[in-house]
Amino acid sequence: MSLSDVVPQLFPFYHDKVEAELKGIINSNPSLLLGMLRYHMGWQDEHGHPCYEKSGKFIRPILCLLSCEVVGGETRQILPAAAAVELIHEFSLIHDDIEDASNERHHRPTVWKLWGQPQAINSGDCMLSLACLALVKLKESGIADKKIIGSTQMLAEACLQLCEGQYLDIDYEGRFDVTIEDYLSMIAKKTAKLIAVSTSLGTYLGTEDEKLVNYLYQFGKELGMVYQIHDDILDIWGVRGKTGKSIRSDISQKKKTLPVVYGLQNSKGEVRRRLEEIYLQEHIQGEDLFEVMRILEQLGARDYSQNLAKQYYHQALAQLEATGLASQNLGPLKEIARFFLERDY
Amino acid sequence: MSLSDVVPQLFPFYHDKVEAELKGIINSNPSLLLGMLRYHMGWQDEHGHPCYEKSGKFIRPILCLLSCEVVGGETRQILPAAAAVELIHEFSLIHDDIEDASNERHHRPTVWKLWGQPQAINSGDCMLSLACLALVKLKESGIADKKIIGSTQMLAEACLQLCEGQYLDIDYEGRFDVTIEDYLSMIAKKTAKLIAVSTSLGTYLGTEDEKLVNYLYQFGKELGMVYQIHDDILDIWGVRGKTGKSIRSDISQKKKTLPVVYGLQNSKGEVRRRLEEIYLQEHIQGEDLFEVMRILEQLGARDYSQNLAKQYYHQALAQLEATGLASQNLGPLKEIARFFLERDY
Repeated sequence: MSLSDVVPQLFPFYHDKVEAELKGIINSNPSLLLGMLRYHMGWQDEHGHPCYEKSGKFIRPILCLLSCEVVGGETRQILPAAAAVELIHEFSLIHDDIEDASNERHHRPTVWKLWGQPQAINSGDCMLSLACLALVKLKESGIADKKIIGSTQMLAEACLQLCEGQYLDIDYEGRFDVTIEDYLSMIAKKTAKLIAVSTSLGTYLGTEDEKLVNYLYQFGKELGMVYQIHDDILDIWGVRGKTGKSIRSDISQKKKTLPVVYGLQNSKGEVRRRLEEIYLQEHIQGEDLFEVMRILEQLGARDYSQNLAKQYYHQALAQLEATGLASQNLGPLKEIARFFLERDY
Repeated sequence: MSLSDVVPQLFPFYHDKVEAELKGIINSNPSLLLGMLRYHMGWQDEHGHPCYEKSGKFIRPILCLLSCEVVGGETRQILPAAAAVELIHEFSLIHDDIEDASNERHHRPTVWKLWGQPQAINSGDCMLSLACLALVKLKESGIADKKIIGSTQMLAEACLQLCEGQYLDIDYEGRFDVTIEDYLSMIAKKTAKLIAVSTSLGTYLGTEDEKLVNYLYQFGKELGMVYQIHDDILDIWGVRGKTGKSIRSDISQKKKTLPVVYGLQNSKGEVRRRLEEIYLQEHIQGEDLFEVMRILEQLGARDYSQNLAKQYYHQALAQLEATGLASQNLGPLKEIARFFLERDY
């Protein structure tokens, strides 16, 4: 049984719950910005007609729910928190697409491409405000006030780190001296922090056991590293049309992804000179994209990246084991971890 | 004694408290985005050297503190809430400057002008996250959990309306059919809501009397209308160099401010034709700016706007009186109301 067979069977149950909650939150707000938000979520086309495009994977809210369930918490009660995590992720996507001048997401034009930058900035801000309001909704499901404030703090801190990670990501575009360490610290902020908060928030709302919250936080952090490194690999060597984003767009935008950082650090002589020459252009296009890909492959950047992702994957599993929770209960979280390592979309 | 003599004597005491709180919040976060935030606040120049530029008026947090004090609350205790209100306002300024392509604020280049749009979007997002964290800080000053959640809800709702108001403001730029009613509904969202939340939040944190909270909310709402209408007037007929923004930038960006909406609705024949001709250009510049100004003046748009501002001012005062609070205690809030109506910066 291949993973792509397993995971889609695991996700729909939670995916539907999360989507229903998100629709409730977004549609209950009679905002004029709604159309852009619903378009971004894949629920309607740019003219406001309902559509059934493939939307996001809702991987973060699903992790949040599973991490609640694994410690014996009630997932129904924490749906607004799971939705809040996704709203923060979606807000960051809308703004990142502007910042990175990305034209496509999920095989469709990005919000800024259709409505322009000003309204896209606005709709991202609106999405972030809805995340705050989602947490307030936890009152209705009987979550203690203290924990609602704790959740707000966790998510706001994740959001701060997201901004900082994105700052570094953009800053690195023009640099050649980015080390592996710099890269890891950037993705820890840009990607891993929100995933760590997704898992630990679910646990925090499902148990009073702080140790478990910490283990699940660490699990999410390691898992977030797997996710981003694998994402970097997919951008270069993924199958066109699967990921929903333009392929090799990281290279064309001169993003310092792991294979590139590794390549720049481990190339010498003529190869290094050629890489620098290509990366000194404003945009990398056409044949140069393939040349970068070939050079990185020859330097072993792909193997290096895959091995590092595997290392984080094993560290993530170790954190899960350390919880001491019954192995059969950890199954779904382990499945997701494997999906992060092996997904092709 | 002129107003400009009175108000600066009233503000510094609160201004300094708010600024100290804001510095604490912004500086306690060791973010790489800090430099941009500190620059925006007027605390350092673009190279990171401290400077003593004139910063914002902190009118919203000051209103928040005064509205707490007037109902017998402890202002020291609610400083983080006052700071949160300002952080939301500042976040919206950073993003609005991008959305409106404004080059200057407080006589200095805007954040996006110096660091580019991507990092400016990022720094606005960072400011908004800090606002959430500021509210969490209320725990330390002994505010009840229930009220912290209530505050989060009030500010998140204000933020949503802000986005919606800004959406309309941009949407109206290309339209000729904006009515006075459309305009009033737009500024109620873009400007008045956050001012209403500033006053009512202070009261909410200072008393258990819901009626007082409602009166102060209404007071802030009326006051917000005064503020924006007066701002519209200042943009056209203000003294260059006083407001810190480029003068007549609203006209040049084809913003549907009150005088313009009035002018478009109350002009006929040749005058109307000329106004439309000017407003069909992509940007309004040079001699056309002065022509719009002259036409609006002749149509009575300035008088109309001033009278409407006065009307809202009196409605604001009526809400204050309705509180039944001792008249001498209402003095500072009344002073600010008068400042809103008569300020020249």
